[in-house]
Amino acid sequence: MKAEVIGIGTELLLGDIVNSNAQFLAQELAYLGIDVYHQTVVGDNEERILKAFDDAFKRCDLVITTGGLGPTQDDLTKEMAAKYFNKELVLHEKSLRYIESYFRKNGRELKGGNKKQAYFPKDAIVLSNPHGTAPGAVIEGVNSKILVILPGPPREMKPMFLNHVVPYLSKFTDSILVSKILRTFGIGEGFMAEQVGDIIENNTNPTVAPYAKGVEAILRITAKAQSEEEANKLIEPIEKEIRKRLGKNIYAEGETTLENVVVEMLIQKKLTIATAESCTGGLLASTLINYPGISEIFVEGIVTYSNEAKIKRLGVKKETIESYGAVSEQTAKEMAEGIAKTSSADIGISITGIAGPGGGSEEKPVGLVYVGLYIKGQVKVKEFNFQGDRQKIRIRTVMNAIDWLRRELLNNSI
Amino acid sequence: MKAEVIGIGTELLLGDIVNSNAQFLAQELAYLGIDVYHQTVVGDNEERILKAFDDAFKRCDLVITTGGLGPTQDDLTKEMAAKYFNKELVLHEKSLRYIESYFRKNGRELKGGNKKQAYFPKDAIVLSNPHGTAPGAVIEGVNSKILVILPGPPREMKPMFLNHVVPYLSKFTDSILVSKILRTFGIGEGFMAEQVGDIIENNTNPTVAPYAKGVEAILRITAKAQSEEEANKLIEPIEKEIRKRLGKNIYAEGETTLENVVVEMLIQKKLTIATAESCTGGLLASTLINYPGISEIFVEGIVTYSNEAKIKRLGVKKETIESYGAVSEQTAKEMAEGIAKTSSADIGISITGIAGPGGGSEEKPVGLVYVGLYIKGQVKVKEFNFQGDRQKIRIRTVMNAIDWLRRELLNNSI
Repeated sequence: MKAEVIGIGTELLLGDIVNSNAQFLAQELAYLGIDVYHQTVVGDNEERILKAFDDAFKRCDLVITTGGLGPTQDDLTKEMAAKYFNKELVLHEKSLRYIESYFRKNGRELKGGNKKQAYFPKDAIVLSNPHGTAPGAVIEGVNSKILVILPGPPREMKPMFLNHVVPYLSKFTDSILVSKILRTFGIGEGFMAEQVGDIIENNTNPTVAPYAKGVEAILRITAKAQSEEEANKLIEPIEKEIRKRLGKNIYAEGETTLENVVVEMLIQKKLTIATAESCTGGLLASTLINYPGISEIFVEGIVTYSNEAKIKRLGVKKETIESYGAVSEQTAKEMAEGIAKTSSADIGISITGIAGPGGGSEEKPVGLVYVGLYIKGQVKVKEFNFQGDRQKIRIRTVMNAIDWLRRELLNNSI
Repeated sequence: MKAEVIGIGTELLLGDIVNSNAQFLAQELAYLGIDVYHQTVVGDNEERILKAFDDAFKRCDLVITTGGLGPTQDDLTKEMAAKYFNKELVLHEKSLRYIESYFRKNGRELKGGNKKQAYFPKDAIVLSNPHGTAPGAVIEGVNSKILVILPGPPREMKPMFLNHVVPYLSKFTDSILVSKILRTFGIGEGFMAEQVGDIIENNTNPTVAPYAKGVEAILRITAKAQSEEEANKLIEPIEKEIRKRLGKNIYAEGETTLENVVVEMLIQKKLTIATAESCTGGLLASTLINYPGISEIFVEGIVTYSNEAKIKRLGVKKETIESYGAVSEQTAKEMAEGIAKTSSADIGISITGIAGPGGGSEEKPVGLVYVGLYIKGQVKVKEFNFQGDRQKIRIRTVMNAIDWLRRELLNNSI
């Protein structure tokens, strides 16, 4: 089955909002095994909406629209759907009662425009909307053409699609898609291609697709089969081979984040942590603190931007800074040890570097960062050289520091 | 002039990424006074790309594409552009040299696919790309048809559009648009409508449009005129009236951020600052440190997540926490005073609150936050009650703390 998605609304054409509905529907349709070759956006204009329906139905059998179901004269989707399929608009009693009660509950008066929201093309399957006043509909035309009209606000559209449209569409698909996501960190595109390029190229079911997402890289393995069990069987050997090749670079599967994985490891190992940051200015602490249960293991974080603070708060030796500089292996080491010891944490992480744009020199260029890691009496330092602007350097520093900690925690002796 | 925007890339059709490029271009074209009636997305497919060009050029004279300029065989935009306009692809020497140097700088080897990125339809105006390896192009066909092809990654596409395409397009518009952006903080939609709703409704040149951008609200005043001077004259009285009504709620004009404005005030007033955070976990410090010149005035930041750290690092009294709790006016006060005094900063800001999802109670619900502000011997506390999830509460807390500091700094005695 082939489908197209049409966003209807002048606000999309003016760029007032981003068309996140198209992305959501694209993902969901791909998951259902329904091919989408076109997405379109048109404004609130009779002629152009009709033409968009016509163009789309020339290419496919299923068209899904979002938007244009509101109470105003500008909202034309239903009217044009009726016109396109040559059906009259009839009152849907149940929807009218629902809309009336919705208004009563919110202490508002029902206006004419909202009554319009209870009218649908004859014989349409009306889809209820518990999150707003605009019901959606499935309209079945001649020649197996199906038009699904959904409201524009994502919080109304998404549950309507998942709860009503997915079950409706399942009768048209003979197979299901199952995906597994493997999340990697610390691998460049080149390394990824080198290690698993042949797997990506040589497999069609399951397919393996790499995606760069910010500082990490994701591999999605997707299998098409008659049942979930069968799909999982197809995925299994491919996943095993990828895991063998990428090893520790894979930090998790499914929907999670690097910081969540690391904080969960710390909680499970009952290890407390404290941070001491210079150029990242609290970004490491605040990234870890994204995790709601962090308080169990996060003791404290210090942003020691000035040399005085490094000396006073962390006990870094004045001579160390004078001899080697604030951005140096030695200072990173003393910062990591200092934060762990003064806060009595099991683990201390320190960051000192040059995030730019100023402050760089030939010897110590912008992007040079030292990360110190103190774990139970042992302290190590890693040097990084990052590219990018201030913000990128800071984010890369923090994520690489967290990833380094993850790799150390994989060591069973810790 | 009418234009259409075509997103090219299977990743858009699969919903792997959201088409934020379409939104950006829609906004910018609206700003230039160029009408857009259609946006389209097609995959990396020869036939469908050609058909999309054809459909679009039947409806308008300017087509802008994003994506499909990469080094792989899947990237077809340039090839299809050449085919559509019946032009051959020729090597653009300057682009080749740039791509070669780009690879040299990054220590990578130039592969065949990247050489492909230096080929363009004959007579195309090549647009340089300092942020990546894919130059863009303007291709002028017969009958005044213009195709602008831009790379897909927003960080490459946006500057290319603003720096090269906007000046190119200006010759097609007979009037110019001048905009002024007023940035406000601390105003809800309701208050904004109440205060300046009549100005927004009653003006057509200049137009006044409000935009919510995360935690702040922006007003864009846009005048259409024959010259910049004339446009500015139209803007002036409207701006004056808006400023009169919104007063201190306007924190800046043009492209800047609240944190930049406040850090610049601190630098100008030669006031040093230190932060003590609990639930925001370093987000206040790292937000301030977004500003590159911050080191002049930022002394240190402490993330005192545990009670022990509050007591040890900041000198908060144990009895205060026991009597009033860690999330209380009294603790916020002692934290602000403590961080200022222990770090010898002129200003100390403290944050203590419940970001959730756990930790709330009837008396102290999730979203309750106290911000303490110590300025030269005086300490004040503000109570906030924020809605939203953990991440939203943390961001709102930080931005409101920074805005409060801004309002205090407007006081001339400081």
